[in-house]
Amino acid sequence: MTPKQISIQTTLSQQFCNVRQQSLELCAPLTAEDMMVQSCPEASPAKWHLAHTTWFFETFILREFLPGYQEYHPDFLWLLNSYYNSISDHPEKKLRASFSRPGLEAILDYRRHVEASMERLFESGMPAEAQERLVLGLHHEQQHAELLATDIKHAFWTNPLHPAYLDSRLPASGPAAAMQWVEYPGGVHEIGHTGDGFAFDNESPRHKQYFEPFQLASRPVTCAEFLDFMNCGGYERPELWLSEGWDTIQAQNWRAPLYWHRDQSGEWSVFTLHGEMPLSDLAGTPVCHVSYFEADAFANWAGKRLPTEGEWEIAASRLQVEGNLLESGRLHPSACEISSTIASGGKPNAATMNQMFGDVWEWTRSPYVGYPGYRPLSGALGEYNGKFMSNQMVLRGGSIVTPASHIRASYRNFFPASTRWQFSGFRLANR
Amino acid sequence: MTPKQISIQTTLSQQFCNVRQQSLELCAPLTAEDMMVQSCPEASPAKWHLAHTTWFFETFILREFLPGYQEYHPDFLWLLNSYYNSISDHPEKKLRASFSRPGLEAILDYRRHVEASMERLFESGMPAEAQERLVLGLHHEQQHAELLATDIKHAFWTNPLHPAYLDSRLPASGPAAAMQWVEYPGGVHEIGHTGDGFAFDNESPRHKQYFEPFQLASRPVTCAEFLDFMNCGGYERPELWLSEGWDTIQAQNWRAPLYWHRDQSGEWSVFTLHGEMPLSDLAGTPVCHVSYFEADAFANWAGKRLPTEGEWEIAASRLQVEGNLLESGRLHPSACEISSTIASGGKPNAATMNQMFGDVWEWTRSPYVGYPGYRPLSGALGEYNGKFMSNQMVLRGGSIVTPASHIRASYRNFFPASTRWQFSGFRLANR
Amino acid sequence: MTPKQISIQTTLSQQFCNVRQQSLELCAPLTAEDMMVQSCPEASPAKWHLAHTTWFFETFILREFLPGYQEYHPDFLWLLNSYYNSISDHPEKKLRASFSRPGLEAILDYRRHVEASMERLFESGMPAEAQERLVLGLHHEQQHAELLATDIKHAFWTNPLHPAYLDSRLPASGPAAAMQWVEYPGGVHEIGHTGDGFAFDNESPRHKQYFEPFQLASRPVTCAEFLDFMNCGGYERPELWLSEGWDTIQAQNWRAPLYWHRDQSGEWSVFTLHGEMPLSDLAGTPVCHVSYFEADAFANWAGKRLPTEGEWEIAASRLQVEGNLLESGRLHPSACEISSTIASGGKPNAATMNQMFGDVWEWTRSPYVGYPGYRPLSGALGEYNGKFMSNQMVLRGGSIVTPASHIRASYRNFFPASTRWQFSGFRLANR
Amino acid sequence: MTPKQISIQTTLSQQFCNVRQQSLELCAPLTAEDMMVQSCPEASPAKWHLAHTTWFFETFILREFLPGYQEYHPDFLWLLNSYYNSISDHPEKKLRASFSRPGLEAILDYRRHVEASMERLFESGMPAEAQERLVLGLHHEQQHAELLATDIKHAFWTNPLHPAYLDSRLPASGPAAAMQWVEYPGGVHEIGHTGDGFAFDNESPRHKQYFEPFQLASRPVTCAEFLDFMNCGGYERPELWLSEGWDTIQAQNWRAPLYWHRDQSGEWSVFTLHGEMPLSDLAGTPVCHVSYFEADAFANWAGKRLPTEGEWEIAASRLQVEGNLLESGRLHPSACEISSTIASGGKPNAATMNQMFGDVWEWTRSPYVGYPGYRPLSGALGEYNGKFMSNQMVLRGGSIVTPASHIRASYRNFFPASTRWQFSGFRLANR
Repeated sequence: MTPKQISIQTTLSQQFCNVRQQSLELCAPLTAEDMMVQSCPEASPAKWHLAHTTWFFETFILREFLPGYQEYHPDFLWLLNSYYNSISDHPEKKLRASFSRPGLEAILDYRRHVEASMERLFESGMPAEAQERLVLGLHHEQQHAELLATDIKHAFWTNPLHPAYLDSRLPASGPAAAMQWVEYPGGVHEIGHTGDGFAFDNESPRHKQYFEPFQLASRPVTCAEFLDFMNCGGYERPELWLSEGWDTIQAQNWRAPLYWHRDQSGEWSVFTLHGEMPLSDLAGTPVCHVSYFEADAFANWAGKRLPTEGEWEIAASRLQVEGNLLESGRLHPSACEISSTIASGGKPNAATMNQMFGDVWEWTRSPYVGYPGYRPLSGALGEYNGKFMSNQMVLRGGSIVTPASHIRASYRNFFPASTRWQFSGFRLANR
Repeated sequence: MTPKQISIQTTLSQQFCNVRQQSLELCAPLTAEDMMVQSCPEASPAKWHLAHTTWFFETFILREFLPGYQEYHPDFLWLLNSYYNSISDHPEKKLRASFSRPGLEAILDYRRHVEASMERLFESGMPAEAQERLVLGLHHEQQHAELLATDIKHAFWTNPLHPAYLDSRLPASGPAAAMQWVEYPGGVHEIGHTGDGFAFDNESPRHKQYFEPFQLASRPVTCAEFLDFMNCGGYERPELWLSEGWDTIQAQNWRAPLYWHRDQSGEWSVFTLHGEMPLSDLAGTPVCHVSYFEADAFANWAGKRLPTEGEWEIAASRLQVEGNLLESGRLHPSACEISSTIASGGKPNAATMNQMFGDVWEWTRSPYVGYPGYRPLSGALGEYNGKFMSNQMVLRGGSIVTPASHIRASYRNFFPASTRWQFSGFRLANR
Repeated sequence: MTPKQISIQTTLSQQFCNVRQQSLELCAPLTAEDMMVQSCPEASPAKWHLAHTTWFFETFILREFLPGYQEYHPDFLWLLNSYYNSISDHPEKKLRASFSRPGLEAILDYRRHVEASMERLFESGMPAEAQERLVLGLHHEQQHAELLATDIKHAFWTNPLHPAYLDSRLPASGPAAAMQWVEYPGGVHEIGHTGDGFAFDNESPRHKQYFEPFQLASRPVTCAEFLDFMNCGGYERPELWLSEGWDTIQAQNWRAPLYWHRDQSGEWSVFTLHGEMPLSDLAGTPVCHVSYFEADAFANWAGKRLPTEGEWEIAASRLQVEGNLLESGRLHPSACEISSTIASGGKPNAATMNQMFGDVWEWTRSPYVGYPGYRPLSGALGEYNGKFMSNQMVLRGGSIVTPASHIRASYRNFFPASTRWQFSGFRLANR
Repeated sequence: MTPKQISIQTTLSQQFCNVRQQSLELCAPLTAEDMMVQSCPEASPAKWHLAHTTWFFETFILREFLPGYQEYHPDFLWLLNSYYNSISDHPEKKLRASFSRPGLEAILDYRRHVEASMERLFESGMPAEAQERLVLGLHHEQQHAELLATDIKHAFWTNPLHPAYLDSRLPASGPAAAMQWVEYPGGVHEIGHTGDGFAFDNESPRHKQYFEPFQLASRPVTCAEFLDFMNCGGYERPELWLSEGWDTIQAQNWRAPLYWHRDQSGEWSVFTLHGEMPLSDLAGTPVCHVSYFEADAFANWAGKRLPTEGEWEIAASRLQVEGNLLESGRLHPSACEISSTIASGGKPNAATMNQMFGDVWEWTRSPYVGYPGYRPLSGALGEYNGKFMSNQMVLRGGSIVTPASHIRASYRNFFPASTRWQFSGFRLANR
């Protein structure tokens, strides 16, 4: 290896340690029993997340690139497979709550086994293809770290005792800064991943798209604003809703965001990873855990619309990737307190865009489809993104439980329009 | 009225007669009992189609614009409402099969009552707003004429005796002309409705879009080609399918297009409005009654893709609106027998595009969303299109049961990706 | 044939005519479209009842016993089969609403064809086995006559316009006679069919059963009494209900018997075959269209219980088979106005039992199982009763839509405990 | 207290210790994670069983009878309530898998808290009412001990790795002794609980019933015999099945008992609490984990029938309560090897009845209803049995996971006819 190669691998090796460590740290407040719970079809047990992310490195890197690698357990190849039909059969997702064996200790041992083997591979020099897969594997584990936080929140909410993940109290938020409109010019723009850094296949190819001029809100919609919508009968007015959204809120009996609860006195509270809080203490924070349908209905009520993913990316690509992300340790969105333009007295502009990264994933009005010329990765890893390109909507920007090194302007998250268990909010667009 | 106004109204009056007549003619082979059947959640009884289209004129035109109009029956306003929440409550769709009363005779009488009243309105002069609604109502009735044909096909297929709608035999088709690739240049194109003619709100506003150069197939995929896909294990290879598509074909046990049936000797036959036919007699005809998932899987198998709706519209906007449509009386797609380019020896070009209009609706890879700047009509008619803009895919070009005056290059049809009861096929794109 | 044989066959031939005629008469107020409706999974279209009862005679008698019999249509053998697996495949029950073809005229022609063939068989002399099957076929058609009335009531209720089957108004009922307790001695009694008359296989063998002394109410529970139960919170008190019943009323949102409707002013009305009536005009009539769960909950509320089927039969076997039955033409239960014991001043006794036959089927607390030594008929007809002996409860006594010659003291009807579309009420027992 | 009272309480106190200890011993092979799994709607997590049985003593005894009792946790009253509507609301059953908190350690602490409090109550003298509830509570805990074993078997089967509860191998069984018919006389017999011992309310009142003479098989049907049924097409012949049973096996795709698995070579294996075993090593053991429908179909195939619960009780009441029960530690039914009559050369008689207690619960053909004169306990405990008296069938005799002191001749177990996760088999009857 040349010194440069050594240096890259050192960096990768450090990243690997960091990412692996971050997953474990999220589990620190959890018992082995907590890590068994699978409380909705979208979620998986925390233990499964720890195991499956390890399986990814074993399956796609160690089995192929480490000579003489001894698999940890012969059944893990299919047991911990999530959905890669090209690799093996795999258990139905809903069965993951039955995996009491292997126990947590065995899974932690599996993690150490794979980490030690990866260490050997780092030391012996890693081929370029293995390096690429490693980087993919790191982002894969970061996705699951985020899911782990999302899923444990739902698990604790489902438990009738509503235990708190963290004992610490979240401080009450002040009111949010006023919402302003930031203007963007139209014309042909390029959208999609660019540069040397990592990106998923679904962010490519970078391609041209034509835009009319548009305006984006300087911050996401807040809980207080969403409560206004509710108080104005938002959930009772069919004309505000997509037909499928209206049917959904009737069938599910939704009258507020997920995790909102109204007590007998009529006061709203919100369940967070810090336990239950009065809504009034969160009034300025971005509304969170709403479906696309609710975001769209709010926008109709406000006489605005949701942005397309391209509009969002144009705005985001001018900004630093910084915000309230997982490393902040807050675990709940914060109120936007910065209003730089007002402070400086000028017109709002691109620099006044707040909370584009972190806090809440932002629903866009763009269905999730492949970009023009999109080609999935070859082989089993081609199943990573492409096969989900139907009946999902794109979300952008990451949330308060997204690792900072995992998010970027071109990042495309996607969920069905009725999804609420994610930290999902929205920002308005105009024109 | 000026002479020109009179002339317009005469034309409208004639169109009204024609459209109304066409609906009735489709019912000519049907008994009152046939017109009661509702064989799947997507479908409605034929009698309901006759009634609801009449309701549209009564509700949106006569009640508002004909002074002294006497409603035919006070309950019809809500009884025959399909989904306009702004107008009234409406019965659940699945209850339409219980409407034995009003009987067919009463519905035909209702039609005459409304037609006579419309005649009075034509004679007394129709305000511009009423004229606009009339044109919308005509297109609305044409949509339901097409649905009527689609639904009765499904109704007769559901009947275990599989009766034929028409006694006449469909002639066997010859093989289809060879498929060729037609090249289109990239750049910024305008998409959406233009000109004076009628268009639905969802075809507007006309707007710019950027395209890479692309190729479209000169004709749709045929039954013979789809059988190849099946014989190559197309329905057994998960890597060809969207994840949701794969789940759907397992859950529904789909192994062929709707209306295909394999007898004990292994021979395939196809149910048509002319009764059952051997697949071999239809080999060259466009494959029909496939879902988006099947169209997409075929394209993956073929190493191609489906076109976007914009690409399709660029190609279609250069063509005359002509093809095998409802007025042909064929009621089943025909094989493409024209291959003008080969005949003339030159390269294929836009003029070689066959069967763009009629024969089969063509699935595109474009989810159904509002165009940039889209605004629904105001009032109840705003519920016509906009509220369905989620989880549906766009189809283009009309089918063999689409009235000729109903289709155009900018027309956007839309159905969920799993829909098969429509006359839905597809055409491949390349690059 | 001996004169006696001739006489029997004449009688059978007359009965055949009568039963067949009765089915048609029930259809007199119906259009062909009415006869297409299948409004709940339990029900069938009226036309199907006319066809299937005819199929029974064709399949079990004409095909086997009439030399040279020409089947009416080769597909009818399986098309009109309800559930006899030993005969042929059969269409799913829910598809019966798709049988627009054969049309009503064809079915009526089929009826005439089979009747003419039966006439030939009557004339040529019918073997004993055929005679037995004929009698079974007559009772089979009577069952379907009753179902036809039951099903059309539900069909018209499902129609949002709630049309009336008969235009005539039902007279308002007076209050019911006071309920009295009639005492029956315990000991070993014989239960089950006895004598020469027809009975289904499930009424045999007659067998001994031991009883404790018991009391039965002199009449069924009335609408007024059931309204008391409702007004006392009967549907809100889980302690009154079987666990499965409680789950059912929550899942179905039942808060009153089927066909009861509360208008905005809080007044109850009841849908009948004569159209909608105020509950107050029916207060003294037996409550009808309740499930077993509701009957049982009422009995718990009243501190009583439902009778066993054996107790009911002991009481009924002492009575003449007479009551408000189909031939009365009333089509809705009547209030019990007779209280003979009070008139004569003595203690109530067996003769004071009212409305044991007709008016409403009476839920018993006996699950439907085979009697000791029960053997189904051999061959396909063995599927008539025996295979339904699980998870159903026995009802006794016939209803206002039961033909008079069809009911008897030993007759066992059976439906799942959640069934409400039948004319089902109940009578209390004590001790 | 008199010496006798002291002695009774000592005995109760010892029983209490024994029963509590038995529950814990069943959990000895389990991890805290194992005790979280709820793998089917019928089952509960093992931890929940430990908690709920403790709740029973706390709720019905300590709260009412121990002055100054400090509840362990204020939420446990409703959190651990199973279905007693009179006590409090309770969480949906399916949520029990989300109870990661309270953790196992807390539940064990709760058990110790309640046990210590019970000890105080024992010492201070327990009122008669409390004693009665205690005995009920002991039987309640024994029921849950059995369920715990049943549920953990299903949990481990659901885990794709199929772990074994015990590492020890089950010895292969020899063939079963020949089946013989034992004759019982008819006449009026008394059925139901008698004597001083404990019985559930549903075993009373003892009452007279009339029986025809009958024969019972000397042992349950074996796996080898059931395999014969399967090999003779038992699962493919609708005429053998109740209609509902036939629908169930189609819908569930059942072609063998639960826990049977056929490998690619066509060999059957059976999952046990000792792990997977070849069926051939279990051929002589009673078939187990079959539904009522399968038991009934087998009996029809064999030309026999299932016994009524009364017939079974007549036979059982002449026998000692002994057999292969939980205390044997076998955890799987054994083959019947005893055929005393053949050994002694005489005719079979009541003493030759084998395996009446233990090994497998035996389905009877008796639906679960209240005995004549049945009255539930008063108050909340009245919800224990009575409210489940619909759509369930009675099983008798206990199984290999039933505690010995829990079973008796009059004991009535009950489950829906489609239940298979219990250790349920059957014995044939004749005549």
